[in-house]
Amino acid sequence: MRQSKLFTKTRKEIPADEVSKNAELLIRGGFIHKEMAGVYSYLPLGLRVLNKIISIIREGMNGVGGQEVLMSSFQPKENWEKTGRWEAMDDLYKVSDSSGREVALGPTHEEIVVPILKNYISSYKDFPVAIYQIQNKFRMELRAKSGILRGREFIMKDMYSFHNSQEDFEEFYGKMKDVYKTIFQRVGIGHLTYMTFASGGTFSKYSHEFQTITSVGEDTIYVDETNAIAVNKEVFNDEVLGQLNLIKEKLVEQKSIEVGNIFDLKTKYSAPFDLSYTDEKGEKHPVLMGCYGIGLGRLMGTVVEVLSDDKGIIWPEAIAPFFVHLLVLGEDKEVLEEAEKVYESLEKAGVEVLFDDRREVSAGEKFADADLLGMPYRAVVSARSIKENGIELKKRTEEKGKIVTESELLKMLIRESFL
Amino acid sequence: MRQSKLFTKTRKEIPADEVSKNAELLIRGGFIHKEMAGVYSYLPLGLRVLNKIISIIREGMNGVGGQEVLMSSFQPKENWEKTGRWEAMDDLYKVSDSSGREVALGPTHEEIVVPILKNYISSYKDFPVAIYQIQNKFRMELRAKSGILRGREFIMKDMYSFHNSQEDFEEFYGKMKDVYKTIFQRVGIGHLTYMTFASGGTFSKYSHEFQTITSVGEDTIYVDETNAIAVNKEVFNDEVLGQLNLIKEKLVEQKSIEVGNIFDLKTKYSAPFDLSYTDEKGEKHPVLMGCYGIGLGRLMGTVVEVLSDDKGIIWPEAIAPFFVHLLVLGEDKEVLEEAEKVYESLEKAGVEVLFDDRREVSAGEKFADADLLGMPYRAVVSARSIKENGIELKKRTEEKGKIVTESELLKMLIRESFL
Repeated sequence: MRQSKLFTKTRKEIPADEVSKNAELLIRGGFIHKEMAGVYSYLPLGLRVLNKIISIIREGMNGVGGQEVLMSSFQPKENWEKTGRWEAMDDLYKVSDSSGREVALGPTHEEIVVPILKNYISSYKDFPVAIYQIQNKFRMELRAKSGILRGREFIMKDMYSFHNSQEDFEEFYGKMKDVYKTIFQRVGIGHLTYMTFASGGTFSKYSHEFQTITSVGEDTIYVDETNAIAVNKEVFNDEVLGQLNLIKEKLVEQKSIEVGNIFDLKTKYSAPFDLSYTDEKGEKHPVLMGCYGIGLGRLMGTVVEVLSDDKGIIWPEAIAPFFVHLLVLGEDKEVLEEAEKVYESLEKAGVEVLFDDRREVSAGEKFADADLLGMPYRAVVSARSIKENGIELKKRTEEKGKIVTESELLKMLIRESFL
Repeated sequence: MRQSKLFTKTRKEIPADEVSKNAELLIRGGFIHKEMAGVYSYLPLGLRVLNKIISIIREGMNGVGGQEVLMSSFQPKENWEKTGRWEAMDDLYKVSDSSGREVALGPTHEEIVVPILKNYISSYKDFPVAIYQIQNKFRMELRAKSGILRGREFIMKDMYSFHNSQEDFEEFYGKMKDVYKTIFQRVGIGHLTYMTFASGGTFSKYSHEFQTITSVGEDTIYVDETNAIAVNKEVFNDEVLGQLNLIKEKLVEQKSIEVGNIFDLKTKYSAPFDLSYTDEKGEKHPVLMGCYGIGLGRLMGTVVEVLSDDKGIIWPEAIAPFFVHLLVLGEDKEVLEEAEKVYESLEKAGVEVLFDDRREVSAGEKFADADLLGMPYRAVVSARSIKENGIELKKRTEEKGKIVTESELLKMLIRESFL
């Protein structure tokens, strides 16, 4: 894409009330726009990142047999009363229409997915089933000062699984642990993310969180690096450490942010709706459930928090809005033509390229923008590079670039972008 | 996909309060689930249709240089007060948080997109810009009895264009007319859809609606078939007919449903936010705007209303959830093996196939389900077809199928599905 056509521009100023690094960099880069505290719109560059994260997650969910749906935000009050959460959930938004009838604005979808399944599940032959969606959620957060890490409105992948035996549930739950690990690795934060034992609430002993280490995290975890697992402070006591076979002295305290979680729901939500099945003998049982969430904005914000430097964002290749940022410097005809040629060759080869073809923008500004926007590779065509018969190529993580010939550049970028 | 794995099943019964044909067929087929009046969830088959419609629309929007974004549902009250619509818009949902602070739940996005653009547009060089999204809307509909034709919550494609001259606006607006025509043709209702002159409200003489003829439509239009245009009843008078050069006697009155509209907004929304630009001479002017909407659920529902028969839905090839419905009848080993072989060959070739591999389901039920679900092609492997050395192939629109050999079937379906 030509940067001269992109309607967003980088900005120097950000909203006065914005204190988080992720929002600062993403707003300055034109990835997102702040509508109000905890509410952001995604602009073209941000939506490209979001869509790449979605593709990675979707692949993971489809890989375990997940069936994609899209459930509504408006949810009947009756359903929420049935589970007791109409009153119990503090952060539930309630909306009234002109007749005064109230509905919930969904912060999660157990109250919707279970009644849907009641139409379709009745026999032991109907299992297992896993349903997921990528959908907008609403939560009445009192504090919303963490940029896209914690929103009043946010996009989430939520999956719900349904089982007719504990073994079937556990097998699926185990698969989901692996799928989540793969997702966080592919997104580029696998090296900082630990599966973490956390409180399971009323129904299960533990839940499993995926926590990414960052100083801005709101959670505290104790990490066992050898075994690549961690324990959330909320369940950190001698009894738990004993059960998990962890040695207190080997654990390191870290601040972290929860980028995903998986829950054993047992019959917590199937029971109120009487979601049940008959077994081989004709006996009726309640359905067992699990749920599995990843906040997409939070994941994107976490990447920005942990992978950026003082100049800007450093996108991992798998979720960068573009693979390469091509800059042309100056107004020299030969330079402009060479840059156009490179741009067209990359486009033709299917390499995702942002071409900074803007006129009347200084080299310094273009370099600063490239650092802020954070594409994995930067290629510069200038009078100097042409004199050296080439193009300057630099990774975002490198200090210095090197001159390569046009054909070397094309070969390299095409190869790397399809790895 | 194997139908035995699909968690939805066809249903005989539908919600008691459901009166529309589109919802009846879509609920019976397991495409959608009704949460409450005017609120539906999309199940796997329905989401596949929706995603195909989205792809077609996205292609059209990108083709005119549209840049995709994803704006928030929560919108600041101040913005809506600025345009006067906080009070004026009857169907606006207002949501309060625990502190009593109110926000709007977006029924449309002029109040959000204009302030976003204020950060990026300031010079005549910044034009034209067109921004679109595919996003969830909320409207407090009093009547919501038309299935997915009119929802309280619904997915829409909304585009907003920005211009620094009337000519630039008109050129873009003209392109959008053509893009919309192409979209409705590709979706399969082009032959029933007319560009229709309608009331433009306060600011413009006319707006242009795209109206699809159907007896359940809430609008009345007068169609000139020769010129393939129509006039909405709301502006149907001698003066308008004169201006448009239409002869009253040649017009046919029809019931219709609005599947899309395009609006000349002039400075209606740019003025309140002072969205302006400086021209070549340094003079400041307000920005001109257009907006362009298509309701995706409404479009899908319209297709079902106009393209179905007494047995079920007839999906156009471009938006069918699957291209072919492969049925295997009976438990004969040879038959099962042949069906598996055909299924794998189609999958391997990339043909989208729903394979009704369910056991203990009668031939009659499988035929009825295939008619209800409405894939463009039905292929049946049975003892009878094997005896005739082949597979029975039938279009959904045909009464009778014919026996073809396996290689003929594969060749034909692979060719047709990639047309």
